[in-house]
Amino acid sequence: MLISKLKENAPLVHCITNYVTVTDCANGLLAVGASPIMADEISEAADIVKICNALLLNIGTANERTAASMLAAGQAANQKGIPVLLDPVGVGASAFRRRLVDRIMKEVNLTAIRGNASEIRVLAQGQCGVSRGVDVGLDDLITPQNMEQTADNLCKFSRQTGAAVSLSGAIDIIADGQSAVALFNGHEQMTHLTGCGCVLSAISAAFLAVAPPAEGLRAAASLWAVCGELAYRQTQDQGLGAYHTALFNNLGLLDDKTVDGREKYEKLR
Amino acid sequence: MLISKLKENAPLVHCITNYVTVTDCANGLLAVGASPIMADEISEAADIVKICNALLLNIGTANERTAASMLAAGQAANQKGIPVLLDPVGVGASAFRRRLVDRIMKEVNLTAIRGNASEIRVLAQGQCGVSRGVDVGLDDLITPQNMEQTADNLCKFSRQTGAAVSLSGAIDIIADGQSAVALFNGHEQMTHLTGCGCVLSAISAAFLAVAPPAEGLRAAASLWAVCGELAYRQTQDQGLGAYHTALFNNLGLLDDKTVDGREKYEKLR
Amino acid sequence: MLISKLKENAPLVHCITNYVTVTDCANGLLAVGASPIMADEISEAADIVKICNALLLNIGTANERTAASMLAAGQAANQKGIPVLLDPVGVGASAFRRRLVDRIMKEVNLTAIRGNASEIRVLAQGQCGVSRGVDVGLDDLITPQNMEQTADNLCKFSRQTGAAVSLSGAIDIIADGQSAVALFNGHEQMTHLTGCGCVLSAISAAFLAVAPPAEGLRAAASLWAVCGELAYRQTQDQGLGAYHTALFNNLGLLDDKTVDGREKYEKLR
Repeated sequence: MLISKLKENAPLVHCITNYVTVTDCANGLLAVGASPIMADEISEAADIVKICNALLLNIGTANERTAASMLAAGQAANQKGIPVLLDPVGVGASAFRRRLVDRIMKEVNLTAIRGNASEIRVLAQGQCGVSRGVDVGLDDLITPQNMEQTADNLCKFSRQTGAAVSLSGAIDIIADGQSAVALFNGHEQMTHLTGCGCVLSAISAAFLAVAPPAEGLRAAASLWAVCGELAYRQTQDQGLGAYHTALFNNLGLLDDKTVDGREKYEKLR
Repeated sequence: MLISKLKENAPLVHCITNYVTVTDCANGLLAVGASPIMADEISEAADIVKICNALLLNIGTANERTAASMLAAGQAANQKGIPVLLDPVGVGASAFRRRLVDRIMKEVNLTAIRGNASEIRVLAQGQCGVSRGVDVGLDDLITPQNMEQTADNLCKFSRQTGAAVSLSGAIDIIADGQSAVALFNGHEQMTHLTGCGCVLSAISAAFLAVAPPAEGLRAAASLWAVCGELAYRQTQDQGLGAYHTALFNNLGLLDDKTVDGREKYEKLR
Repeated sequence: MLISKLKENAPLVHCITNYVTVTDCANGLLAVGASPIMADEISEAADIVKICNALLLNIGTANERTAASMLAAGQAANQKGIPVLLDPVGVGASAFRRRLVDRIMKEVNLTAIRGNASEIRVLAQGQCGVSRGVDVGLDDLITPQNMEQTADNLCKFSRQTGAAVSLSGAIDIIADGQSAVALFNGHEQMTHLTGCGCVLSAISAAFLAVAPPAEGLRAAASLWAVCGELAYRQTQDQGLGAYHTALFNNLGLLDDKTVDGREKYEKLR
C-alpha cells in the first residue's frame, strides 16, 4: 500500500549525502516515484527544506562545511515538521564522525536512524556522547538467536532518542519505542555493492513522508530487500555489474502486492 | 554532420558540475568523442580553461566555494573566446541559486543556457535579477498549443541575454535571437533517471565547440532524445537499470545519419 | 595468487579521490574483496588511516581543502607504515596540480605512483619541482619500439622517488628501481569510459596491502586489463553501457588462475 501511496505523493527529499553513492541515491528515489534534491550549501539549507517533504542526513563523506549544513537543514526540517532520517555511515571510524552524530542527535529531533549493527551500536552505547546512561548492547551479526534481545535493545534506544530505528543486516530489524519486527529478505550479494545501505536510507526518508516512522522504515527495507533477492534470481552469477542493473530495474517495477507477497517477517514485540 | 565533426575535433570540455550526475556527464562526453575535465578549484580555473574548448557551468550542487570557481572559469573562458553553457539546475529552489545565476549572467557572457521550462522561466521572469524589464512567460509543460508563443518568448529572452537557449521537456525548443525549432523526440522514461538533463548540458557544451550555438544545441538535443527513444525500444519494460545502460550504449554508437533520419522537428521561427 | 590473498585479507583502503569516478572506485574495491572508505575531512584523516591497510591519493578533483587532507593522511599513513599510492590525475593541466604533487612527493613517502605516460612524464621531468636533476623522457604512446627505453627511465624515476611505478597505456609498464615488466593485455574500449585509470589505482592500492609494490601493481594491472579484454569479447559492439557493466562483472569474478593464464607480458629488466 505504501509504494503506491509514495508514487501518488511523490515526495521531494532533500539529501545531504556522501558523494560516493549519491547517484544511486538519486536514482533510487526517482525509481520509487519520489524526487531527489541534493544540496549541501548552508546558505540555501532553509530554502531547500522549505520545498521538501523529508530530509536525509548521511555522514559518509561529511566535512566541517557540510556538517554545519546538516545541522542547519535538520533544524529547519524540525521547524517545518518534516521527517528527518540520519544515516550514521562509518560513525565508529573517527572522532569527527562521532562528534558530528552527537551534535545532530542533540540539536535535531530525528524521526529515524538507519544503519548497520556496528553503526547503531556506536550510537546506542553512548560513544557519541548521546547516551542517557543506558548501554545498549548490539552484536554485529543479527541472528535468530540474538534478534529478540536486539529488538528489546533497539526499542529502548528508540525510546531514548525518540527516533525509530532501521537496523540493516542479514536480518533487518525495524523498531520504535513499542514494537519491533524482524525482516528476513535480502541477498548477500548486496554487501558487495557500494551504496546499498545509502539507497535504503534515501528511500526510507521518502517513505517517512507518507507513513508513520516504523511503517515507513519497514516498507523501504522490505522493498529494497526484495529487489536484492529478485536481482540475484535474475542475474545469478553474472556478476556485480549485472546485479546493480537488476537492482534498479526491480526498484522501479515492484509494487505493493509483489513486495507484500514476498516479505518474510516475524513480529518480535 | 556535427556528430562526426565532434568526434574529429574531440573537444576538451571543462565541467564545473554537480556531484550527483558527474559520472554520467563524463561518460556522456567520452561517448560522443569529447573529453571531460572536471575541476572546481578556483586556483586552477584559469589554467584548466586555457587547455579547454568549452566550459560547462552546472549549479546543481554549487556551494560558495565552487560558485566563485564558476565565475572565475566563466570569465577566463570569455577572455579565451571559448563557448560557455549554463545549466541553472533547480534555480527556483533557493535564493542562493538565484543570486548565483544572477552573478553568472551579469559577469559572464554565456553562449548558451539549457534547462527545463521552470528553470528557464525563473531566469526569463527576472527572478534572478537579470531581467531587462520584460517578463517572459513560460508554461511548465510545452505543448503543440503553446510552443509557438514559447518560441517567441525564448527568442526574446535570447536577444536579451545574448545566449542561445535549449529548453528541455516533452517537446524541446531550441532558440536564438532569430530562429526557433521544436524537437519532438525523446521518451518519458528519461525523466525517471537522474542526470538526463545534466548529460544533455554536458554534450551540448561539447557541440558548442564545433558549431554555432543554435545548431550545436539542436544537434545535442536530438542526439540525446533519439538515444532515449531507442533505449526504450530496446529495453521496453525491463526497468531503469537496463534503460540507463541502453542510453549510454546508444550515445556512443549513434551517427549523424541515424539521428538525422529520426529527428522529428518543426521550424517555429 | 594475489587475488585470493586479497580476498582473504580484505584490506580496508582509505581513498581521497575525485568525485567523478568515486562510485566505480568503491565498487571496484568491493569487487576484488577489499573494502573502501572515502573520507577527505582533514580532522578525521589520522583516525581513518589508523583503521586502514592502504591509502589512495587521487588528485582528479582536488581542491585546497582536500589537498591538505591528502598531505595529512599521507603522513599518517607513513607513520603507521601502510602503503600509499598516488594517482596524479591530469597533473599537467594546472600549476595547482603540479604544486600539490610536488608537496605530496616531498612530504609523503610514496609506495607507488600510477598514471598514464603524460602524467608520469610531468613528474619525471621535474615539472612539479621534484626532479633530482635527471630529466626522464617518456613518450605519450608506449610501443614495442620505445618500451625498453621507457622501462629504463621508469626504473631511474623509481630509484629517485622510492616509489614503484605503474604506467598505463596500450602497453602497461610496471617498474621499481631494479626490474620492469611490460603488460600487453587490455582493450582500447577502456579509454572511452571515465574512471578506468582511477579504478586501477584504487585496486592497485588494495594489492599493495598484500604484496610488495611491483608485484601488487602488476597483479592489479593484469587483472583490470583482462577484465577489459573479456568485457569486450562479451559485449562486442553493444556499446559503452554494456561494456561498463561487463567490466564490473568480470572484476568480481576473475580468479588468479584465469588472469595468470591470460596475462601477456615481457620482462624488460
